[in-house]
Order: sequence, then structure tokens, then C-alpha cells
Amino acid sequence: MAAEAKKKRIVVVGGDAAGMSAASQVKRQRPDWEVVVLEQGDYVSYAACGMPYYVEGRIAELDELVEITPRAFREKRGIDLRLRHRAVAVDPGRRTVTCELAAGGREEIGYDDLLLATGARPLVPDQVTPGKRVLTINNLAEAQRVRQQATAAGVRRVAVIGGGLIGLEMSEAFATLGLATTLVHRREHLARLLAPAISSLVKEELQRQGVELCFGAALEGIESRADGVTVLAGGRRLEVDLVLLALGVVPNSELAAAAGLELGVRGAIVVDDHLRTSDPHIYAAGDCAQGRMLVDGRPIFTPLALKANREGMTAGLVMAGLEASCPGTLGTAIAKVFDLGIARTGLTLEEAAAAGFQPVQNLITTRSRARYYPGGGPVHVLVVADRRDGRVLGAQLAGPLDAVKRIDTFAVIIQQGLTLDQVLELDLAYAPPFSPVWDPVLLAARVTRKQL
Amino acid sequence: MAAEAKKKRIVVVGGDAAGMSAASQVKRQRPDWEVVVLEQGDYVSYAACGMPYYVEGRIAELDELVEITPRAFREKRGIDLRLRHRAVAVDPGRRTVTCELAAGGREEIGYDDLLLATGARPLVPDQVTPGKRVLTINNLAEAQRVRQQATAAGVRRVAVIGGGLIGLEMSEAFATLGLATTLVHRREHLARLLAPAISSLVKEELQRQGVELCFGAALEGIESRADGVTVLAGGRRLEVDLVLLALGVVPNSELAAAAGLELGVRGAIVVDDHLRTSDPHIYAAGDCAQGRMLVDGRPIFTPLALKANREGMTAGLVMAGLEASCPGTLGTAIAKVFDLGIARTGLTLEEAAAAGFQPVQNLITTRSRARYYPGGGPVHVLVVADRRDGRVLGAQLAGPLDAVKRIDTFAVIIQQGLTLDQVLELDLAYAPPFSPVWDPVLLAARVTRKQL
Repeated sequence: MAAEAKKKRIVVVGGDAAGMSAASQVKRQRPDWEVVVLEQGDYVSYAACGMPYYVEGRIAELDELVEITPRAFREKRGIDLRLRHRAVAVDPGRRTVTCELAAGGREEIGYDDLLLATGARPLVPDQVTPGKRVLTINNLAEAQRVRQQATAAGVRRVAVIGGGLIGLEMSEAFATLGLATTLVHRREHLARLLAPAISSLVKEELQRQGVELCFGAALEGIESRADGVTVLAGGRRLEVDLVLLALGVVPNSELAAAAGLELGVRGAIVVDDHLRTSDPHIYAAGDCAQGRMLVDGRPIFTPLALKANREGMTAGLVMAGLEASCPGTLGTAIAKVFDLGIARTGLTLEEAAAAGFQPVQNLITTRSRARYYPGGGPVHVLVVADRRDGRVLGAQLAGPLDAVKRIDTFAVIIQQGLTLDQVLELDLAYAPPFSPVWDPVLLAARVTRKQL
Repeated sequence: MAAEAKKKRIVVVGGDAAGMSAASQVKRQRPDWEVVVLEQGDYVSYAACGMPYYVEGRIAELDELVEITPRAFREKRGIDLRLRHRAVAVDPGRRTVTCELAAGGREEIGYDDLLLATGARPLVPDQVTPGKRVLTINNLAEAQRVRQQATAAGVRRVAVIGGGLIGLEMSEAFATLGLATTLVHRREHLARLLAPAISSLVKEELQRQGVELCFGAALEGIESRADGVTVLAGGRRLEVDLVLLALGVVPNSELAAAAGLELGVRGAIVVDDHLRTSDPHIYAAGDCAQGRMLVDGRPIFTPLALKANREGMTAGLVMAGLEASCPGTLGTAIAKVFDLGIARTGLTLEEAAAAGFQPVQNLITTRSRARYYPGGGPVHVLVVADRRDGRVLGAQLAGPLDAVKRIDTFAVIIQQGLTLDQVLELDLAYAPPFSPVWDPVLLAARVTRKQL
């Protein structure tokens, strides 16, 4: 516990990963402080990343995605958790938050320090109105609706709009349910964060698994009728029963903007390493808060779960008066696309060039296990390094599901600024069921080094 | 290719990982140099670590373990590879090696630079004589013999003597073949390199899979008869049909000793970072060469495949006149014990204390995947850190097979000297099929930090 400090009231807006991590951390450090969490919905602390697997049926009950119940937060952690309270205004001068209650009426709550953990929401184009057959998946209530619709009688065809990680995971979920699934994506390649070579492997896997690809097809409109939906994209008309919008997410920063806080990349709230906004008594953490790319210090919008959890914990410590900081992220991400695992961390070739590096990129294909040991498969490793000093700037992997978590090895390598020569000195683990003697990470470094 | 240099003759003694890596590297850098490899057996460049899986029948043919054939080395790489040539003496003054040929006769070969890559051999206690029913497994010919004996008519019971990684892997191989398998080990816990808590998990898995454990039982003798073997250990008599000796290995350094080279830990040949022995024209690499623990600089004997391959490559570069070095190892190791994966890197608590650190040790148990995502399992993470500055000194893992390669993350952490606070800042990958939000590596750091 921290040294004694003036008793405060901390108010948190938003009850998912960042908000509840922060609230819990403040109470852990300052059990006698008052911590109020305002959550507009019915659920807190749920695993949003698990929602595709609920839709797919791999996870039977929605409740399984709830990490800690509201009751446990209230009774075990002593947090004043108020569900169905939607924060609608912040007054930084008077230090108050105004809420609208789902039950009706308004409340005004004063704070000593405020944390905005309002998250992000799916991007919905101007010409589209979500409805019964045009869905987004942004919280447990929406996940339930998607599951209900996807398994409803007469629903056979679905279009997923957007080839980001959520679009890929949802395509797998729908196809696994037996729906005829089309993935509509505006570019020829997937998310900018994946190199074209990795993107091609993902496209092959989707096709192998029966997902129809409609690529290079920008969304032009969605026409909803009682009995179906027409998707207009890239000059084509797609007749489906259901549409899932997965065009990326935007930060929920309207409250922050109205309170006069500084906004940054894509409207995310600007924070420093201690999660402080431009107001000395307001913090922000998680998907609504701007991140920083560790390699080049550039501000980024990177709504990822670990970032949200870590920032929540850190903001809680800082609000409780302790030393803590979040230096930034590498945008490390991993995803299952049917039987293919993909992962990425750090900069792409284009990002590295834009940041002033002189990047080279190299792709190798090797084995996930010893050549002769059964059950392995090809693993593709892409490395981006600086030609001048051999520093590793980014990496991407595609391969068997049990092979791609080694992106973490690259994450440490990049975060520590190691060169390819230093990578070659790493003592990584080898045994035939796990790896070739020269682990794919080492082999990629060996081969890429020759390109410098 | 390297800048021009005086044409030399390089002689390599030993044709496995270190020797063939070195020979290949010299020819790659200096195609016009003469490279002679003297190998006493019939095989070169084979995957010794794959032998348990050949015995088990998971790998059908012995040839699958051969990475590159003698013919390919001769014809594609231009190496003068001489099989069945056993080096019996080195004269450092005259720079010659004397060989005994299996076909009869002797040869003397002059060298400009010599590499000793003589490997290691199984330790055989004085009171034991290997024979038809008392076997070791040190090369492909021996692996074939073990496989033949283990699958011979009438062979039902086998004793494995020694609970190191090879003993564990061979116990699994025999049990998988349906043999009643007893693992005899002199201590109550497994290899000193595994912490007791990890050792206990391994023992549980062995028992669960039907391997009988005879622990705390030092070997007292082995009585071989035509129809069986009696193992005397810890006051017990074990009647079996077959015995495998897996009491660890000793470096083949007799040639080096006779040539007057300096020997170190357990008789391994002392080398510097450039693989140079105490003689300016003799190098040593692989299992016969002494290693260095990166964390504390202490000389160690650590006969592992990656070390051998890397040292061979490095020795080849150095002999070819290029800049290259091997700074040392962490003794990183990983093994499959039935359905349990185990892995270790860096120092144990005892080693850390002996090296002058003030170590704390902490074991956590968490999940290999998101709690709600099927197919995961408990993963146990043990961290050794210095109490004074939080620097991570060692780590061990036990858990599902697809969970323990994350020992590599720890290997980079330890090799780079990161503290627990720095580990907590790492941006590791998360998605439900791969990890909890807080990866086991991060969670272990969080929890261990509280112990400082």
C-alpha cells in the first residue's frame, strides 16, 4: 500500500478493461478512498476479444466472457459501480460529471480526479444505418444480437465489411457456423498493418476455408429490406441475409472534446506517459486514449487489450499518487484465421521509411518444428531492419497456430533496439517438437543480415 | 565472400553439428581453401536430438534424421569429407593429425588450422559395461540398436538410468512403445537445472503416463545376463530386459588433453569467444568445448544443439579470417515429456546465490490461453530475480506443449539484463486462442515484483 495521502474521490467513466483495472488499482492502493465507476451498459470487465468465439459457438455462454462480476467489484473490491449511468458531460472547472440514467433522470457527481475510459466504437459510414440485419459487434449485448441473427432460421448468407483483425475473426466465426460468408474489403490487401506477403497467406487460408473474397471493393452502400440486405461495393451487388460492419473503430472522445481536452490521432485523447490529459485532474486510458509507437515515438491509435489493461493499471497507480508510467507500445497483435496464425509487431516497411529509417525487408519461410518431426508446418517470418545499423524495426509472422506466439521474441528484440547481429547471439530454445535448431527468429535474422 | 587471404588447409575433427557447420562456413567464405573433415563413423550432420523420436517410432526412418548427406557435402559444398577416419593424435608443433582408418592403416594430415568438434559421449560408470542389453544412445548407429532392442521379441521391461532431458525423452519413447518403463534417478528431484517445483510437475506427468519412478536411488551396479538385466539402485533390485544409460555426457577431450590444450569444467576444452583454444592454430566448438553462462560469465559445460551449431558457424568464420564471436549461452533448453512441455533458461536460485546475486524466486500458475477459450491449460512460470535491482536472472516453464516456447521471451529478457519493471512494459501479443491478456511472462513479472 502507498504512503498516506489526502483522501480523494476518483470517478471513472467506462467499466471495461481500462476503467476497472484503474478502479481496482486505486482501491488496492487507497482502500479508504472513494472510487465511483459510471458504466452506461449492464456489463463490466468483459473480454471483448472473446466475442467472435461466442458468436461461433466455441464458447457456450456469454457469461463466460465476464472476467469479474459487478457484484464482486462492489463487495470484494469496494468500488461504487453504477451501471446504466451514461456520462454526458464533464465540467473541468467545477470538477463534475453529469450522467443520464437509463432508468430516467440525471445525476451530477463531483471528482478530485477523473479517468476517461470510454473505449472505442465501430466505425459506421455516413450512408449506412445499423439495424436488425446490419450489425456491429462492440459489446456483449451486440455480440448476443449477432449470435442470435447468425443462427436465426433462414439466415444463410453473410457479408463482413472490412478485413481488419475483427473482420477476419468474424469471417471465421460465420463460416464455422455454416453460413456462406463473403469478406468485403476496399483494398487488394488486408489491413495496412500486415505486409502484402502475409496478407496473401491470409487470403489463401480464407479461400481454402470457403470464405468468398470481395477485395478491392470499397463500400458504396447498404440497402436493408425486411427479407435481406444488398451490399453495394466496388461496383458489385451482393445479396445477403446479414451484414457485419468491421471497418475499424473510432475512439469515444466526444466527452473529452466537449470538455476541451486535447485530441490527437483519429480523435483519440492525448495523454502523456502517466496517462494525464491536457487537464491536470483528468486522465484517459485504453482505446479512447492515444498511444505512442515505441520505435519512433510517433503518436498512434492502437486499440488493443493489453494496452487498455496496462494503461488502466498505470492510471490507477498514478491517481493513487504512486510512480508509474506507460512508455508506449509496438502495436503487437496476433490472430487466429482458421488454421493460420498471424502476428505482427513494430513498424512495417512503409512506416519505417516514413519515420526516416532506411529499411530493408526480408521474408523467409522455414519450419515451425524440426523438419522430420510430425505436426509442424511452414512458418513465414518477415523482418524489417534498418540498413544502416541492422536494428530490427518490425516483424510479422504467419504459420501454424502454435508457431506465431514467437512474435513476443521479436517484441522484446524491437523494444530493446537490438540489431540483427545481436539477435543472432540470442540463446533461444530448441528441441524437435518445438522448433528447428535455428529458431525461425534466428534464421530470419541470419538471412536478413545478408541484405544489409 | 571475404577479402582475399593466404590459401589454407583447414582440418576438422568430427562431422556433426559443430564440425560440419564450420567446414561449410569456411568453404562458403573461402571456396579455394582445402577443408578436410575426419569423421570416425558413417554419418555426418545428423539430428541427435531427434533420436528419441526415432526409437519411439514417430519418425519412421533413421535417414530422416540426416540433415545433409556426405555426398552433398562433398559434391555441393566441396568438402573433403573422410568417413571412418578416427583421429587419434594431434601434434601441435608439426601441425598434424593422425587418423586410424576403419579399413585399417593410419594417415597423417597436416593443417594450417585445426578444429576439434569431437562432441561428447554418455557417461558410463566404472562398474558398468555397456552391452547387448545395456545401451547408450549417442549416435545414429546406437539409436538403431536401441530401437531394435526395444522392439525385439520378449522385451517388456526397460530401466532408464538418469533423469536428465535425454532420460526423460527416452522414458517417454519406451513407454510409448508399450514397454513397462522405470526411470531410475539418484536424487529425489530431477536434473539440478530444474527447480524442485518444476521437477515435481514432471514427475507427476511421468506417473500419470505410467512410467514407474525409482527416485533417490543411486546406481550401485548392473548385472547383465543372457536373458535379462538386474539393476541395483538405492538398495533395490530391478529386473528388466533392457537398460538405457542416460547419466549425462562427458566431453570427448582426450585428443585435446594429449595435445596439451587447456581443459576446464568437467574436462571440456577451454575456448575464448572466438573458439580459440590455448593453441593458436587449434579451435574447438560444440559439445567438447567449454561454454560461458552469459548472466555471470561463469564457465559451464552445456552440450546443446544450438550452441554447437552457432559455435561451428562462428569457428568457421574465424578460421576463414572474418570477425565473429560467440558471447556465451543461457543454457536455454526445452523438452517434451508426454503432454507436458518444460523449458528453462539462465540461472537457478542456487546458481544465482552462488554467483553473488541476492536472488528471489517466485512461481505462478496461470492459463496458457484466455480462461474461457478451449484447449488451454495451466502454465507454471518460475522466475529468479535479483532482490536489489529486480534484474531477471533465470526462468523456468512447465505447461501445455504449445505454451512453453515462450521461454524465448525470457531468454531475450535475461540476455539483455532487463528488470521486472522493464518486463512489465513489454508489448507482448494477446488474443484468446494464444494467451491471456496478461501473458504468463508479464503476469510472472508482476507477481514477482511484489517479492522484492
